[in-house]
Amino acid sequence: MPATSGDGSEVSLEFWFDFASPYAYLAALRIETLVAAATRGGRSIRLLWRPLLLGPIFQRRVSNPSPFQQAEPAERRYRHRDIERSCRHYGLPLTWPSTYPRGSLLATRVALIAAGEGWGAAFARSVFAANFAADLDIASAPVVAEILRDLGRDAAVILARAAEPAVKASLAAQVDEAIAKGIFGAPSFLVEDELFWGNDRLEQAIVWAVSGKIGEDATPAMPPG
Amino acid sequence: MPATSGDGSEVSLEFWFDFASPYAYLAALRIETLVAAATRGGRSIRLLWRPLLLGPIFQRRVSNPSPFQQAEPAERRYRHRDIERSCRHYGLPLTWPSTYPRGSLLATRVALIAAGEGWGAAFARSVFAANFAADLDIASAPVVAEILRDLGRDAAVILARAAEPAVKASLAAQVDEAIAKGIFGAPSFLVEDELFWGNDRLEQAIVWAVSGKIGEDATPAMPPG
Repeated sequence: MPATSGDGSEVSLEFWFDFASPYAYLAALRIETLVAAATRGGRSIRLLWRPLLLGPIFQRRVSNPSPFQQAEPAERRYRHRDIERSCRHYGLPLTWPSTYPRGSLLATRVALIAAGEGWGAAFARSVFAANFAADLDIASAPVVAEILRDLGRDAAVILARAAEPAVKASLAAQVDEAIAKGIFGAPSFLVEDELFWGNDRLEQAIVWAVSGKIGEDATPAMPPG
Repeated sequence: MPATSGDGSEVSLEFWFDFASPYAYLAALRIETLVAAATRGGRSIRLLWRPLLLGPIFQRRVSNPSPFQQAEPAERRYRHRDIERSCRHYGLPLTWPSTYPRGSLLATRVALIAAGEGWGAAFARSVFAANFAADLDIASAPVVAEILRDLGRDAAVILARAAEPAVKASLAAQVDEAIAKGIFGAPSFLVEDELFWGNDRLEQAIVWAVSGKIGEDATPAMPPG
């Protein structure tokens, strides 16, 4: 969604997401409104929806699987409560998926096709809403087909393409690209080389995209080692 | 800092922190301004500064040590960058501790004494600033003594008390209480039974303290299992 306001220059904001992540759901339902509001004044932002599978990323980690699958009950309970409160905070609906996490492979392959054809944002929003607001099994082909029909797409054709080796290879390359860019979780936002992780950083990512910085303090900070 | 405005009722907001945590530094330098602004309208908030050691909490975990000590280089690099950006976002100074994480045991024992005598907030802010803005070794007795003198305290007396068994037992009890209350990281904020984790949730915790809820959507969410 390139805007035409501002100083005429344009910057890409990559939105990396996994359909199984509730924090990505929060970001997906917020990002376009925030981007539209931000680009009124500064550089225009080209928003790129980039589907991703966290599974292969977590599998390559030395430790620390998905925070939602960690063994510590206190943190697991907390994260569910945090999502509930955050949905209320943003005014977003929430029905917990009756199976969690839902397999996101099929929907992610379709999302890659969709992103290549310019309807990636609409498809992704529908899948997130199906998973977290309607408790529909997004791992099931009939559910994805219904979403595709709602978007005016030929479900049979798209689902057949999603099973082709080229799409599988494209998804593998997408995950490799994410890792190469330093992405270790989702949602993540990338503006050129600047990485922002988590729904909580969406606002900062947009500020960075528009202005190329955060805040006014230019004191150089020295990272250790 | 009980305020006297609002409807006359008062609610406690527990601020749990470890001096080694940079995210706790962000919260410590922001919390009093935010609390003061919030209590102008609603219930008044009694802010309780509750020092904590994360070490014993992480040691009892099945997995996942401190996020800053995890093995994944991408996440470690990211978190340092995130702290730098967040300091600029809030307009807070940052000089990375030349040793990280700094041992917080001594300062935490003194902070427990300070909290019991009503100067816990001032001491805690000074320790955080020493660690993250001035790169002073807060694990060293001379540094803590200097902070105490700056606050008009008898450093020799306080440091002697900090080494007494009663203070050690009090700190162990404090950690046990944190775990019993579901705390698994820092900073954490507790309003009655409602837990908020991370500097990013400070604003929500204050809203909860003042109003007892987040947002307007009262749709009950059903957590799995």
